Amino acid sequence: MDIAKLRQAHPDHWNKACAIRALTLDAVHAANSGHSGMPMGMADVATVLFEKHLKFDASQPDWADRDRFILSAGHGSMLLYSLLHLTGYSDMTLQQIKDFRQWGAITAGHPEYGHAKGIETTTGPLGQGLANSVGFAMAEESLRAQYGKKVVDHYTYVIAGDGCLMEGVSQEAITLAGHQKLSKLIVFWDNNNITIDGTVDLSDRTDQIMRFKASGWHVQDIDGHDPEQIDQAIAAAKKSQKPSMIACKTHIALGSSAQDTSKGHGALTDDQLIADTKAAYGWTTGPFEVPAAIKSAWEKIGSRGASEFKAWEDRFATLSNGKQKEFNRIFALEVPKKLAATVRALKKQTSETAPKVATRKSSEMVLEVVNPVLSETIGGSADLTGSNNTKTADLGVFSSEDRKGRYVYYGIREHGMAAAMNGMVLHGGVRPYGGTFMCFTDYARPAMRLSALMKVPTVYVMTHDSIGLGEDGPTHQPVEHLAISRATPNTYVFRPADTIETAEAWEIALSSKTTPSVLSLTRQGLPTVRLQHKTSNLTAQGAYVLADADGKRQVILMATGSEVEIALAARDMLQDQGIGTRVVSMPCFELFAEQPDSYRKKVLPGGPVRVGIEAAVRQGWDQWLLGERGREAKAAFVGMDSFGASAPAGELYQKFGITAEAVVKKAKGLL
Amino acid sequence: MDIAKLRQAHPDHWNKACAIRALTLDAVHAANSGHSGMPMGMADVATVLFEKHLKFDASQPDWADRDRFILSAGHGSMLLYSLLHLTGYSDMTLQQIKDFRQWGAITAGHPEYGHAKGIETTTGPLGQGLANSVGFAMAEESLRAQYGKKVVDHYTYVIAGDGCLMEGVSQEAITLAGHQKLSKLIVFWDNNNITIDGTVDLSDRTDQIMRFKASGWHVQDIDGHDPEQIDQAIAAAKKSQKPSMIACKTHIALGSSAQDTSKGHGALTDDQLIADTKAAYGWTTGPFEVPAAIKSAWEKIGSRGASEFKAWEDRFATLSNGKQKEFNRIFALEVPKKLAATVRALKKQTSETAPKVATRKSSEMVLEVVNPVLSETIGGSADLTGSNNTKTADLGVFSSEDRKGRYVYYGIREHGMAAAMNGMVLHGGVRPYGGTFMCFTDYARPAMRLSALMKVPTVYVMTHDSIGLGEDGPTHQPVEHLAISRATPNTYVFRPADTIETAEAWEIALSSKTTPSVLSLTRQGLPTVRLQHKTSNLTAQGAYVLADADGKRQVILMATGSEVEIALAARDMLQDQGIGTRVVSMPCFELFAEQPDSYRKKVLPGGPVRVGIEAAVRQGWDQWLLGERGREAKAAFVGMDSFGASAPAGELYQKFGITAEAVVKKAKGLL
Repeated sequence: MDIAKLRQAHPDHWNKACAIRALTLDAVHAANSGHSGMPMGMADVATVLFEKHLKFDASQPDWADRDRFILSAGHGSMLLYSLLHLTGYSDMTLQQIKDFRQWGAITAGHPEYGHAKGIETTTGPLGQGLANSVGFAMAEESLRAQYGKKVVDHYTYVIAGDGCLMEGVSQEAITLAGHQKLSKLIVFWDNNNITIDGTVDLSDRTDQIMRFKASGWHVQDIDGHDPEQIDQAIAAAKKSQKPSMIACKTHIALGSSAQDTSKGHGALTDDQLIADTKAAYGWTTGPFEVPAAIKSAWEKIGSRGASEFKAWEDRFATLSNGKQKEFNRIFALEVPKKLAATVRALKKQTSETAPKVATRKSSEMVLEVVNPVLSETIGGSADLTGSNNTKTADLGVFSSEDRKGRYVYYGIREHGMAAAMNGMVLHGGVRPYGGTFMCFTDYARPAMRLSALMKVPTVYVMTHDSIGLGEDGPTHQPVEHLAISRATPNTYVFRPADTIETAEAWEIALSSKTTPSVLSLTRQGLPTVRLQHKTSNLTAQGAYVLADADGKRQVILMATGSEVEIALAARDMLQDQGIGTRVVSMPCFELFAEQPDSYRKKVLPGGPVRVGIEAAVRQGWDQWLLGERGREAKAAFVGMDSFGASAPAGELYQKFGITAEAVVKKAKGLL
Repeated sequence: MDIAKLRQAHPDHWNKACAIRALTLDAVHAANSGHSGMPMGMADVATVLFEKHLKFDASQPDWADRDRFILSAGHGSMLLYSLLHLTGYSDMTLQQIKDFRQWGAITAGHPEYGHAKGIETTTGPLGQGLANSVGFAMAEESLRAQYGKKVVDHYTYVIAGDGCLMEGVSQEAITLAGHQKLSKLIVFWDNNNITIDGTVDLSDRTDQIMRFKASGWHVQDIDGHDPEQIDQAIAAAKKSQKPSMIACKTHIALGSSAQDTSKGHGALTDDQLIADTKAAYGWTTGPFEVPAAIKSAWEKIGSRGASEFKAWEDRFATLSNGKQKEFNRIFALEVPKKLAATVRALKKQTSETAPKVATRKSSEMVLEVVNPVLSETIGGSADLTGSNNTKTADLGVFSSEDRKGRYVYYGIREHGMAAAMNGMVLHGGVRPYGGTFMCFTDYARPAMRLSALMKVPTVYVMTHDSIGLGEDGPTHQPVEHLAISRATPNTYVFRPADTIETAEAWEIALSSKTTPSVLSLTRQGLPTVRLQHKTSNLTAQGAYVLADADGKRQVILMATGSEVEIALAARDMLQDQGIGTRVVSMPCFELFAEQPDSYRKKVLPGGPVRVGIEAAVRQGWDQWLLGERGREAKAAFVGMDSFGASAPAGELYQKFGITAEAVVKKAKGLL
């Protein structure tokens, strides 16, 4: 790479791009860790994008109609932090850059959503940003259709690396975007031919251009260091009627002795290397010093969108009052007042009619009344619409022909769906929910973890939640998946016992601003267990007394979901034998853990023996069975300690010993 | 579809294929559940494959050099069961077909490895079979290079559906296969244009032909109901120097009123529909009745390979005695006797030199001595070779140029790697291990679950296993992943404290025949804690007393991996205060749970207070902290209850309170 030629050809551009490169070298040097090479390689692309195309105003980072910039190759975080600092985002101070990767700094090793304005999503786990971006672009299309081009009309830009493109989730994202013709999605592929293990051809020889074309993308192939080519490619991409991929041939760790090597991927911390590289750049100021003229040029870029923002504000003001309020409400993740009344009405009606239905069907019943009240919901399923019961009558289908549709056929793409849903919430204005089988939580795990880490209230509708699904067998029967979701911090795992608890769970999930929800729902029919109408949301307490003991309380049966019915039957049998038995329904462990000690002790007093019942592994239960006891801990668990099997559901419950009889036997054995 | 024309054109073929279709209709009808359409659609392809190409002998199902047939679209299990029954696999009786999806039958809803001969892998979770097949094909290449073409020379055939191809893991599999030029891998795409939600174009418009070409595949496009086209395509695929994809245009639920609809994907159980369909087929016998001539024709196919098998046996006998023994040993998953001595020698040496190294480095030290002893290991990493420390000096690199190499650069494909490793074990003759960061267990989860379900001893080398990885931050810091792996049945989760425990863990992992292992290893250096050499494998007991109390035993500190060091430091502090403190190292919960009660009580007697220490969530610990106690359960836990953060490792341990001081405080608070 002839650095000198680049410098001479476009000196102003070069200096701006080198500000990114120099800050990256200095921050990684100070932290003694990080990734230098990617920001050094992609600085030219990012500079042209920010200077000439990205619609943003650094002083208005929450502008709903800003273009979104997503750094899917999150290890190159210093690229993003440099851009935010240079363009003048007020929270991205020079001190934060100096504190890169230190405790308390907003400049984490990988970009963390919520740490700083301008970080649109958390990236680092590869492929996620790219897959999020599909959701961003879908949210934009949906809101544009609803609110009009004058208030919603922006692009979503992504930088993805070879790692992003090798991850399977990228294929789900690319094909979904291509299918949906998301023309305002523009992806830069940092085509630097380097991964951690060496050159890309050690492990991959994919023709990425052909691959994207096969998925219906507009594709260009450019020199990622030539500002004119970059500018022209972006202009062409914006005009395309398809999602656009720009393959940018770049040199990782440009201009350093580590250029074009896997060493250049990591932390360049050698003093001499840094000095030599800066010299090659013609960068003469000290560490973290950006010459005033260059900083000022960048700040001009940062305020370039001010008038556009003002004009947008004026246009926004022309919306009806109602529309403005609605827009602000959905972007604030506020629920409409009508939600509570709607849920209450359904609960009341259900307690009266006491239907016996699967909770997946209960979920549909809730969505049928809730979707019309919440214009911001976008539902979907990974090709299990009829099984997940996620599509309600009023939604319509979101497609390239109908952007007002609010139901997405995600295809067999659990991971891509989950990541796209995260993107929708992050974009704002959308509350997405999506379904698959509980067992295939596995496929969506990386994105589900990020919902929790980013604190976004994505809703996962996971049906067929136990051996109760029957004949499809152990490949489809979750046993460890409740434990998996419960082990994840900041995740509500709801396992409702009937339609009423399902309605309560949905109310919480749809009201949440910072916690994702997993709804664990049955395939098989369940009786209504909440026969007495209560206006308050009992599920919000996590666990509550569903049926108390008659006479002396000797046993507490604790159960969730489909096993609450078994607990009630066991209670009947125990009471018949004169053994006072309380049944506690525990639809959400996490919310129960959040209750005051006094409430928890009221629900689970120390005296009686306890039996937990759940058609899943015991892990996670001991905190309630054995924990918080003032005395001898006598407890047992009725559930699964192996994978399931293929047979009719009723038979499986018998064979695996998850029955009222087994519960009675265990309880009596403890007395 | 003109059924009559198909019948007339190839009557013999038609009858054989219809035996599959009729058995499918009958079995699904009897079970009242299942998937009829796929076997009906792909019966022609399968018939031609089995009749004309597949190298197999139904009476020798364990023939090491048989062609492998993998039904990646596992929901079409009746296709496989029908083929096995018709060709005369002795365990696949007609009664088993009649008991489809019933308790105890080998004919589960989806094909379950181990249930019946001829089921090469468990499928159902989409894309897995296709991704396994890459491992099968790699194992074949590797063994052919080692043992010669005369004993290893077979194809791997796969049937994959639209679901398989939409899952992200398929892209990882396809690109890995293309890169590795696995020319003996042949994939039939059941191109029926139907998914559960409707026609494929509801969610996807990928040009699959172009997509496979972009990944370096040989591609053909045929009528999947024309036996001549099928035959010719397979012949051409076998000759290709690339992996081969044959797009087979088929009609799901062929010949029924549900043909070409998503209804046809599921269970066709309507009596009239079945009668009409059979009539259209010209199939006149009763349920489960295959006319003798047709059955006999199929049985001839089943024994077609007998002479080929005999010839193979003769060729095998020409191998040297040593080679034969080695071949049989590796296919039996037996370890060489030398393994134990090798591990013991390393342990002895380590206890003397007491190195301070990260356990990922310990793992490399073990592999350096173990890989030369086990010719069957094939190592690899998902582009983190230098970080996972998975590559040892003697391995060489497995590539299209060197099939004797035993190290695979899997690329950034954690999921594809895990599934390929499963395929290698399933093929036989290979013990694969592969690395990524512990946090990215998430990406590999669906395949890791299948290792456990299938009972195959795949080894997962998961490094950077806590906040101890430092600055990369919470996206890379596992907190829930130990709990996730521990929640999964039939999985050994090892978290060794030093090089000696790491060696012991590897010994168990490499000796296992039926249980996969997760090795949870640190990035940061750890002292050697096992300073006294013991020949026996203490890790095999799951937990053991590492340091006992001086004086009255008041406290038991229980820890794993990097936190054992903290436990020992806390013990010193407590002992200094006269508080007798035992330290129990717990490298493997599952193995500890397998010990007799008496041993567990000896290690964890009921009296002392207990403090568990692990830089991860508490879930899973309560069984040891609170369980199996005869009295008041006084216990505490020092670990994580949130995601981590980006900062140097030492600081993170301080900030999150995982320190000897915190342990001492908690222990004293319980006394």
